[in-house]
Amino acid sequence: MDQKLDVKGHLRELGALARAAAPLLARAGTAAKNRALAAMAREIRARAAQVLQANAADLAQARKEGCDAAFVDRLTLTPEAIEQMAAGVEQVAALEDPVGRISERVKRPSGIEVAKMRVPIGVIAIIYESRPNVTADAAALCVKSGNACILRGGSEALGSNRAIAACVRAGLAAAGLPEAAVQMVETADRAAVGELITMPEFVDLVVPRGGKELIARLSRESRIPMLKHLDGVCHVYVDDSADAGMAVRIADNAKTQRFGVCNAMETLLVGQEIAPRVLPEIAGIFRAKKVEMRGDEATRKLVADAKSATEKDYYTEWLAPVVSVRVVKDLDEAIAHIAKYGSQHTDAIVAGDRARAERFLREVDSSSVMWNASTRFADGYEYGLGAEVGISTDRLHARGPVGLEGLTTQKYIVLGHGEIRQ
Amino acid sequence: MDQKLDVKGHLRELGALARAAAPLLARAGTAAKNRALAAMAREIRARAAQVLQANAADLAQARKEGCDAAFVDRLTLTPEAIEQMAAGVEQVAALEDPVGRISERVKRPSGIEVAKMRVPIGVIAIIYESRPNVTADAAALCVKSGNACILRGGSEALGSNRAIAACVRAGLAAAGLPEAAVQMVETADRAAVGELITMPEFVDLVVPRGGKELIARLSRESRIPMLKHLDGVCHVYVDDSADAGMAVRIADNAKTQRFGVCNAMETLLVGQEIAPRVLPEIAGIFRAKKVEMRGDEATRKLVADAKSATEKDYYTEWLAPVVSVRVVKDLDEAIAHIAKYGSQHTDAIVAGDRARAERFLREVDSSSVMWNASTRFADGYEYGLGAEVGISTDRLHARGPVGLEGLTTQKYIVLGHGEIRQ
Repeated sequence: MDQKLDVKGHLRELGALARAAAPLLARAGTAAKNRALAAMAREIRARAAQVLQANAADLAQARKEGCDAAFVDRLTLTPEAIEQMAAGVEQVAALEDPVGRISERVKRPSGIEVAKMRVPIGVIAIIYESRPNVTADAAALCVKSGNACILRGGSEALGSNRAIAACVRAGLAAAGLPEAAVQMVETADRAAVGELITMPEFVDLVVPRGGKELIARLSRESRIPMLKHLDGVCHVYVDDSADAGMAVRIADNAKTQRFGVCNAMETLLVGQEIAPRVLPEIAGIFRAKKVEMRGDEATRKLVADAKSATEKDYYTEWLAPVVSVRVVKDLDEAIAHIAKYGSQHTDAIVAGDRARAERFLREVDSSSVMWNASTRFADGYEYGLGAEVGISTDRLHARGPVGLEGLTTQKYIVLGHGEIRQ
Repeated sequence: MDQKLDVKGHLRELGALARAAAPLLARAGTAAKNRALAAMAREIRARAAQVLQANAADLAQARKEGCDAAFVDRLTLTPEAIEQMAAGVEQVAALEDPVGRISERVKRPSGIEVAKMRVPIGVIAIIYESRPNVTADAAALCVKSGNACILRGGSEALGSNRAIAACVRAGLAAAGLPEAAVQMVETADRAAVGELITMPEFVDLVVPRGGKELIARLSRESRIPMLKHLDGVCHVYVDDSADAGMAVRIADNAKTQRFGVCNAMETLLVGQEIAPRVLPEIAGIFRAKKVEMRGDEATRKLVADAKSATEKDYYTEWLAPVVSVRVVKDLDEAIAHIAKYGSQHTDAIVAGDRARAERFLREVDSSSVMWNASTRFADGYEYGLGAEVGISTDRLHARGPVGLEGLTTQKYIVLGHGEIRQ
């Protein structure tokens, strides 16, 4: 009970500090923010040895606790990873500052001019798991977008995160910005997350990065708006009007360029007329790359070694060398399949017929919808946003890759000349 | 217990119907949606007698239950109010359709083109109190923005709302659009609201319109994103650089043009140098219009009959002929006062000095910030949005007056030529 009270007290203290720092960071000019980011990168490089030492201690503890190899791998920092972290912070400095940007300016019949100004959101809580590099990435994105942040990394990475956060805060101080704008949760107690998502007076937005179970739980319990990423059950639909060579190339790339990523293809839908011309060739590639195919009856007629797909398979985000396949009658059946089994993440059509492609673009209700491109392009760098804080599968505020703009909001500004309302 | 189960069942049934209708409405073209709106307006006019009859029954019941005069007044429909309702629906038809609008199209080095497309949100639940005209307004805005909706009006207005909803649904049917896209909660049981805000599988956004207590409770309990309006503690700050005549005119208009509205001024802040030139004149106007002034010591030196303001007064949304007044040292003190006591709704500066006005516009963190204009302009019609579903004091998705665009979201579309990720 006492410890619980301590966690609450600790979190409320961090919240109050972040809330107080937020307006100062919101008002900071682009030059000051960029100076802070440059100083952060310098500090990360200068203190690389300390960061590696802290990481070594975290790794020793994780191994002692029997964490698996993949977990230890995600937790591991190397001199190269530290250099990448510093370079990443410098890349954020090079991005355009969205804060203060004025748009949609119109003059109204009353004489007033109305416009929108882009402004920071306030205090952003970022909850992530074992990768310590997120500490630097997330802090850099929040500082550049003028937001204070509260970082809650994996409990096993606490030492590494603390060492990185020290570099971040030194960078803020060097530029004359408030160190308190970046807060780190200093307890490994899991109750901290429960507190973080239920203090709307101190936190304006929660960005959870991590496993599905974590995010599902947070969305049930959070009392604060969240930008979250749930499943990525992404589809490629090969329309009968597709160029067969292009269809094969995109299906291959979408599935096999990387398996464990959210924008990889999990289900391939193929029009019934083009199926005999593309499915056997795609199957040959998948066979060579050891990708297991699970198809419906029509698929298995064309690909003898495909396993039989169950209803559940079509709902599954494989994140592995497995792909669900289905032959569909037409565009309508493809759109209906995606609406039923998809997760509104990223879906692509390969088609030569422009009218069908445009229907797909309009009617498929996903955060990214593509025509003649691989689903693997759904990414902040590929879209030109620079770094991203994640990919949102939510509907409001920001959908798809979330970069600096997604970490800001807009207010109305009104410029008058003494106008009064009649 | 059984009744509770029935409410849950009823709400889930409405939810499922709305969810199923949503994609059909999302795909509807502008012409079909406008035909539906025109037919709704015709039906409202054609069935005016039935609507008035249902309203008379609601009014009789409300009087029997001892509802106060203001409540009965809000509930009352007249032939003129019905004509206004029909005309309002026609005005929504005349607004530009945001759905399908493509913006921010850029070509990336990989060859793909990336853009954003505006799309409906899905299913919107609107919770409102006694005014039956909201039934037509809200339905029209949702239909035009391609959203299905679930309407939950005040229980005392159930008969009136049912009669209006029948016109709305007849209009949808006449245009070949699904009647199920507009659902009305058919029970007066208050448990219905609790269900509505906790079915994220059927509802994407909740828009509550009503008293502060209702909204505060909904925001604690909702598991669905909300666009809500809390307090409107709006300020006018008269900077020392202001034109005195303009300052008096704006302060008068912002306070007295209408008292009971959220964008009326509740607190007047005046720079210490200009105070002797403007405060006595403003006080004269307020005295003549019977507006009670509550000021700090410096105010009372200039306005002998001003009462003494308490700390609590500065937090108060009067919605009445009362105004809090404070003399401030400078712009910094004004901004700090607004940050502490304000509600982030609408705040204005009257100033001749451009640098100070720009600082105010940037640093005051409210949904509308104004320079040399009356706070009363914070309104969807005045901003050129057409009708509004409300004014959001939330930070994410949409701030300030929310019109058709605020009822939509954006997705990424990617146009390729066979590009794959390297």
